[in-house]
Amino acid sequence: MEYRIEHDTMGEVKVPAEKYWGAQTERSRNNFKIGPEASMPIEIIHAFAYLKKAAAMANADLGVLSPEKKDLIAKACDEILTGSLDDQFPLVIWQTGSGTQSNMNANEVIANRAHVLNGGSLADDKKVLHPNDDVNKSQSSNDTFPTAMHIATYKQVMEVTIPGLTLLRDTLTQKAEEFASITKTGRTHFMDATPLTLGQEFSGYAQQITNSIKAIKNALEAVRELALGGTAVGTGLNTPKGYDFLVAKHIATLTGLPFITAPNKFEALAAHDAMVEMSGALKRAAVSLMKVANDIRMLSSGPRCGIGEIIIPDNEPGSSIMPGKVNPTQPEALTMVCAQVMGNDVAVSVGGATGHFELNVFKPVIAANVLQSARLIGDACVSFTNNCAVGIQPNLPEIKKHLENSLMLVTALNPHIGYENAAKIAKKAHKENKTLREAAVELGLLTSEQFTEWVKPEAMVGSLK
Amino acid sequence: MEYRIEHDTMGEVKVPAEKYWGAQTERSRNNFKIGPEASMPIEIIHAFAYLKKAAAMANADLGVLSPEKKDLIAKACDEILTGSLDDQFPLVIWQTGSGTQSNMNANEVIANRAHVLNGGSLADDKKVLHPNDDVNKSQSSNDTFPTAMHIATYKQVMEVTIPGLTLLRDTLTQKAEEFASITKTGRTHFMDATPLTLGQEFSGYAQQITNSIKAIKNALEAVRELALGGTAVGTGLNTPKGYDFLVAKHIATLTGLPFITAPNKFEALAAHDAMVEMSGALKRAAVSLMKVANDIRMLSSGPRCGIGEIIIPDNEPGSSIMPGKVNPTQPEALTMVCAQVMGNDVAVSVGGATGHFELNVFKPVIAANVLQSARLIGDACVSFTNNCAVGIQPNLPEIKKHLENSLMLVTALNPHIGYENAAKIAKKAHKENKTLREAAVELGLLTSEQFTEWVKPEAMVGSLK
Amino acid sequence: MEYRIEHDTMGEVKVPAEKYWGAQTERSRNNFKIGPEASMPIEIIHAFAYLKKAAAMANADLGVLSPEKKDLIAKACDEILTGSLDDQFPLVIWQTGSGTQSNMNANEVIANRAHVLNGGSLADDKKVLHPNDDVNKSQSSNDTFPTAMHIATYKQVMEVTIPGLTLLRDTLTQKAEEFASITKTGRTHFMDATPLTLGQEFSGYAQQITNSIKAIKNALEAVRELALGGTAVGTGLNTPKGYDFLVAKHIATLTGLPFITAPNKFEALAAHDAMVEMSGALKRAAVSLMKVANDIRMLSSGPRCGIGEIIIPDNEPGSSIMPGKVNPTQPEALTMVCAQVMGNDVAVSVGGATGHFELNVFKPVIAANVLQSARLIGDACVSFTNNCAVGIQPNLPEIKKHLENSLMLVTALNPHIGYENAAKIAKKAHKENKTLREAAVELGLLTSEQFTEWVKPEAMVGSLK
Amino acid sequence: MEYRIEHDTMGEVKVPAEKYWGAQTERSRNNFKIGPEASMPIEIIHAFAYLKKAAAMANADLGVLSPEKKDLIAKACDEILTGSLDDQFPLVIWQTGSGTQSNMNANEVIANRAHVLNGGSLADDKKVLHPNDDVNKSQSSNDTFPTAMHIATYKQVMEVTIPGLTLLRDTLTQKAEEFASITKTGRTHFMDATPLTLGQEFSGYAQQITNSIKAIKNALEAVRELALGGTAVGTGLNTPKGYDFLVAKHIATLTGLPFITAPNKFEALAAHDAMVEMSGALKRAAVSLMKVANDIRMLSSGPRCGIGEIIIPDNEPGSSIMPGKVNPTQPEALTMVCAQVMGNDVAVSVGGATGHFELNVFKPVIAANVLQSARLIGDACVSFTNNCAVGIQPNLPEIKKHLENSLMLVTALNPHIGYENAAKIAKKAHKENKTLREAAVELGLLTSEQFTEWVKPEAMVGSLK
Repeated sequence: MEYRIEHDTMGEVKVPAEKYWGAQTERSRNNFKIGPEASMPIEIIHAFAYLKKAAAMANADLGVLSPEKKDLIAKACDEILTGSLDDQFPLVIWQTGSGTQSNMNANEVIANRAHVLNGGSLADDKKVLHPNDDVNKSQSSNDTFPTAMHIATYKQVMEVTIPGLTLLRDTLTQKAEEFASITKTGRTHFMDATPLTLGQEFSGYAQQITNSIKAIKNALEAVRELALGGTAVGTGLNTPKGYDFLVAKHIATLTGLPFITAPNKFEALAAHDAMVEMSGALKRAAVSLMKVANDIRMLSSGPRCGIGEIIIPDNEPGSSIMPGKVNPTQPEALTMVCAQVMGNDVAVSVGGATGHFELNVFKPVIAANVLQSARLIGDACVSFTNNCAVGIQPNLPEIKKHLENSLMLVTALNPHIGYENAAKIAKKAHKENKTLREAAVELGLLTSEQFTEWVKPEAMVGSLK
Repeated sequence: MEYRIEHDTMGEVKVPAEKYWGAQTERSRNNFKIGPEASMPIEIIHAFAYLKKAAAMANADLGVLSPEKKDLIAKACDEILTGSLDDQFPLVIWQTGSGTQSNMNANEVIANRAHVLNGGSLADDKKVLHPNDDVNKSQSSNDTFPTAMHIATYKQVMEVTIPGLTLLRDTLTQKAEEFASITKTGRTHFMDATPLTLGQEFSGYAQQITNSIKAIKNALEAVRELALGGTAVGTGLNTPKGYDFLVAKHIATLTGLPFITAPNKFEALAAHDAMVEMSGALKRAAVSLMKVANDIRMLSSGPRCGIGEIIIPDNEPGSSIMPGKVNPTQPEALTMVCAQVMGNDVAVSVGGATGHFELNVFKPVIAANVLQSARLIGDACVSFTNNCAVGIQPNLPEIKKHLENSLMLVTALNPHIGYENAAKIAKKAHKENKTLREAAVELGLLTSEQFTEWVKPEAMVGSLK
Repeated sequence: MEYRIEHDTMGEVKVPAEKYWGAQTERSRNNFKIGPEASMPIEIIHAFAYLKKAAAMANADLGVLSPEKKDLIAKACDEILTGSLDDQFPLVIWQTGSGTQSNMNANEVIANRAHVLNGGSLADDKKVLHPNDDVNKSQSSNDTFPTAMHIATYKQVMEVTIPGLTLLRDTLTQKAEEFASITKTGRTHFMDATPLTLGQEFSGYAQQITNSIKAIKNALEAVRELALGGTAVGTGLNTPKGYDFLVAKHIATLTGLPFITAPNKFEALAAHDAMVEMSGALKRAAVSLMKVANDIRMLSSGPRCGIGEIIIPDNEPGSSIMPGKVNPTQPEALTMVCAQVMGNDVAVSVGGATGHFELNVFKPVIAANVLQSARLIGDACVSFTNNCAVGIQPNLPEIKKHLENSLMLVTALNPHIGYENAAKIAKKAHKENKTLREAAVELGLLTSEQFTEWVKPEAMVGSLK
Repeated sequence: MEYRIEHDTMGEVKVPAEKYWGAQTERSRNNFKIGPEASMPIEIIHAFAYLKKAAAMANADLGVLSPEKKDLIAKACDEILTGSLDDQFPLVIWQTGSGTQSNMNANEVIANRAHVLNGGSLADDKKVLHPNDDVNKSQSSNDTFPTAMHIATYKQVMEVTIPGLTLLRDTLTQKAEEFASITKTGRTHFMDATPLTLGQEFSGYAQQITNSIKAIKNALEAVRELALGGTAVGTGLNTPKGYDFLVAKHIATLTGLPFITAPNKFEALAAHDAMVEMSGALKRAAVSLMKVANDIRMLSSGPRCGIGEIIIPDNEPGSSIMPGKVNPTQPEALTMVCAQVMGNDVAVSVGGATGHFELNVFKPVIAANVLQSARLIGDACVSFTNNCAVGIQPNLPEIKKHLENSLMLVTALNPHIGYENAAKIAKKAHKENKTLREAAVELGLLTSEQFTEWVKPEAMVGSLK
């Protein structure tokens, strides 16, 4: 492989000749061979492109960067956003905890690519832009990396997580309406209970997801706030006056998202509580989805020895040994995602709790976990919706059989004969394997006509939607 | 010990003669000898008193319970709220997952105590109230226990957690103002960095807690919603029309808290996402507090071999072997609480994720963990504030010494001589153990006068508060 | 309340007149009002009694403590071990992270109680023993508290956890033998699968617990090692030569457990990895038990609308509203315990990871969580065994019905007609709601006689136990 | 893109013409668009190659597969092991929870590649091997995927984790010896304490890692056991007699690792407790490493305003804004890894706890997390060792300054003048900013000569290594 010589404040470094990155990126590549290459989330890289462009714009507006340099930086950033430079970002999550090296990776690639766009060559000793003095002007890794975290997270949540959850919620709501008049046995403690409609059951699922979306939106409020302008320790050293507000405005415009400057930059650098909060909201959604997916897996169990009250789509052969087997694979994928998100939340919390003084140095691991959780939830909801939820059908014969057999219909008798007498009927029916009606009449507690009048499953599902 | 005979639908049970509880409580006591006795949080018991009274009021309003019975129930509930009957609730967390047995414990104690208040005797065969048909009227464990969870949690958070956090936040804010003009070295990566004021540092802590309070308040919105009225599976079976709204209103009035009926009772029984969300918010606060407490422990380290920039109160002899030692015991207690809350959150999430069909049966473990987290955070904040935070004083000589020594003051030169030249100065000073000024002048990069003009720590702390 | 005046190196403190504790305990009581009083686990207090006695014995053996003082200390310690002084230990978990205050609580109670046993009065100004110079001789909180943690944990695991797990394992093994010839449908993905025996299913549960016990025993190896003798920072300052080995030997003799002195005292004070490891082993057991308890809850579901292949004992009325309902309450209690243990493990890990330099100061929270996990698992296993597992019975009619209906018996045909043809049969049977035999013959893939010969559920359960 | 038509029991599927995978892989690719493509760990794929080859060998040995087919399968497997077919495995973690689709991916690629190696063409309608009937003979996803999990994990732990930990441990041990005679101040509660040597401090770190390695090796014992031979539900249906032992033997031979057949196949399919146990052991190592890395980060803090007792290598410019700054980047990367491993452990535990009946269907998420943890720990230890630990140097002037200043040297006076008198000296020195000697003499508690004789830091570091 051919190399060129780059330098930084520590000296010279050999860099692959054709790569846009520079000395500091290369040092990091060599010093952190931990896990697969290039694990730093690409969403962070693209977020850097927005922020470097916005910073250049703000710097130019405020007269500390020439319009020419601003344009060059903007042009390189736009290219990063197309994805065409993705392979110029080889660094891993497991680097310095401030993400400095990925910030420098962005600075170096932008400076070098701008130089080439400007007609220069990578081999030139002198470049049109300096990675620190120009591209990183009015910035520090300490405020850029958190800003990139927030930009990437807000985008991911808005573009992947919430749409995925909303799609699933809407589908479940539609199913709830579709199934509104199908009365079925309820189950509490995994045991037969009083009836409800299949639609009511699904309305609970939909409500869980509605509430999850609300919690995620609450958490977005904190993610809106950007650290940029705080520079090294939150004081804004080496930034022009008004820069923090202006750069947040530019980022908001470029991304179309309602970013604002953080009210307290010390908090914004030293803690990542906003990310911890978002992770907690995503975990809360995972908890909801785990319940929903488990229910659907169990309700569809069978085909002949399970609960079997709903039918889910058959998407793949289910077994490499059992012919004709079909499995609830979408609920399985979704619940695995939920387990991951629950684990990720602990990683984020441990990272968030372990900051010191003016800087939390668990930034990359926090960012990577939150972004993964956000994406997995969104993707898994879409997959689960399209390949499973939309196709759910009631298995009416099974539902009817269960409903008619359920001893818990006896609950309807409480107001008429009291809890203890009702219990006698249920116990007798269970013990002697009889119907409730038979047991009731044999016990002389009511007549068959009263039973018909009082025990109507459809009347037991109430007026609560 | 003397016993009396109580019965339930399963038969007779011997109960300690003088206790107000009945057959089902006694069965539970015998069947669940897990961990210390009476571990069910007393806050849940007291919440039951509110809800049983409110249910009786709503039942009476709607004509399904006589005013006399309502009054008797209310009187017994009021007694429970005084705490005088606390020893009548011997059950543990580790019982049925619906909390049925604690619901029945409440029903039995209320029925029996009311009977005695009404002039009867515990030994009477026939009591004035039936635990199920009267005290539990229009209720099920499945909607009462979640309601008790929400009442207890909302109260705990409002009465303990938020006041504790607010007290600490206000104290930190006051310290931030008090320390507003004390310039000190910043630290990033635990390494010397550019300066900020001690006040700015504390303002970051205060902001963390402000944001935590906000997150907890967001989570309260979901805890406001009460399941009561859903009865067994969410349909409201055996409740009179309008009951759910009315009973929530009564609970709101009795507690003085803004409870409302849950919009979807199926969700409210089958999931405890609201509790998971609250646990997540408390965990987020724990993450914040861990950072703050760690900083204060580290900033006060020494007295002679540490960082020593602040002085915290000496409250106890710190060592049983090292004479005169004083330790940051309040930060230690607080960080241990934070570790516990982080663990509790996982217990709550696992419980929350493992519900099935119409009922989540991890209710007691969820309740116990959320209530513990809420209390510990509140109590620990008060303890930390009163015994540590209020007494924090700057150690001015150390602060001054560090500030003057810090090589990172060199950052102020970036705009004048560029990042790379500034780096040369810092490196030379470090290597040769010189001051920045000496190194700068020796390198010929600037004059001593320029150094004086450009490197002013007080001017480096910026305009960001 | 009456008080007496005690003093320590910080000055005078008012202590309740009749209490044996002294100044430092009282300071802690006042300075740490966090959560309920006296939350420090009593197992830790009792462990202190063993170690203080052993230390006195070693000190006397090595000539640094008089035999008279040794005997007095021993006598007071023996009393603590009877439990009669339990109310002399009012401190909470949330104190100094070294547990110094509980060490001093022990020192003070022993010194004062010994003084009284020796004929003195609590009001005497001069006592026969000094809490630090005598009772704490050759010790520091920094090595005593970790030692108490290990003693308490080892005892709890040996006396509660392993016996509980073993009882359950043996019961499950017995059930496995009892059910060895009951062939039933298997279930994978919660869907019907090829058959196995109910005994085989239970043998898997027993194996899980056998493996859990093994993991816990592995973890005990590290808990055997005692920090005592390291004193303040691990160097053994102020201890006589040979003391660490001798004191461990005395503790081993007094407790009847195989304690040894830790090979590296620096590790033993600065980290609690042994406790983290034990917590991990307990968590692994919780994961096993969660699976077992869930299976039993689900296999027993019904009585008419569930899987219903086993019958578990009816211990309590299951519902306050649904008459005659019986629920799997023991599995519920057990799974709640498992959720708690999974959460506790995170608290322990966070505490374990956050030690600094020569001392981990999350000792009390680590100890409390490990001890709770150890006890809850043991207690819950006993409760689950005695109130549920021993009474499990097969529901033979349901088992037979499911087995005969299962389409997955078709798997037996793979070696005869290939996977794809077998799949055709299963799919046809499912679609047309036919038996496998009917579908097979109609498809012309085999004769009814061949079906009889090849598809024998009892022959499909294999030779693997 | 060009396609060919493949089919499975559900019908036809269009597959990219040049790819070796078949219908079921393609279905999975389409049905599970969750997260980045091809996220299934490559270690699992390679493990499948070992097991498919071993299964073919055992099948041939036992006469159920022809030698020709065995050879073809073996040849394709060998190719997979070279890595040249890595791009034929496009599936994600978030698929069916049994990993069936990755098992089929292996079956299909092996069958098709073998067909081509045998001179056939991918377009041929009839292939020399059938993915199910030949490549998957005597197997089920349910026993192959767990076997692949164990093979991959055992290898990763042996090849990456343990060597990484051992390298670091050995380096720390070497440093402990190198620093054996450097006496320094100890620190407990982050506060000055009695002295120890820098070597002793490092010996504690080494011991932590030694113990971690031991715990991981204990956990390997369970990972040795292979599920293969259990097939669909653990009964070994459709396997020839002796197959399970034989296939484990072949896998042991092929991998050079001591695999054995699991004693109970029901446990081995239905639970992944062995993986949970390994994850717990890796988490325990993470907890150890977090402590070690934090200490090194803090001990090296400064250069002028921190603790600064050791000097770590400068590997990269530390700041994009602060010139000349150098940061403890390797400890940062390592502690981020530790946070990740702590989170992964929760994901693994949740997955492990959520299996049902005969199969745990969280296999891929469990595998992915354990493998990531195992790799990250190993890689990070190597990175940390080579780029940081080996280069650690004592900062002797700082160490000396701290040692001489420390007030805790007073502890050496306890045996001479008692704890309370010693405390008076320390407090006076602290308050009046004097040396201990000055305070001691002024208080008249001892002479300057006695001070010299009794207070010798070098004599306070004891005989405990």
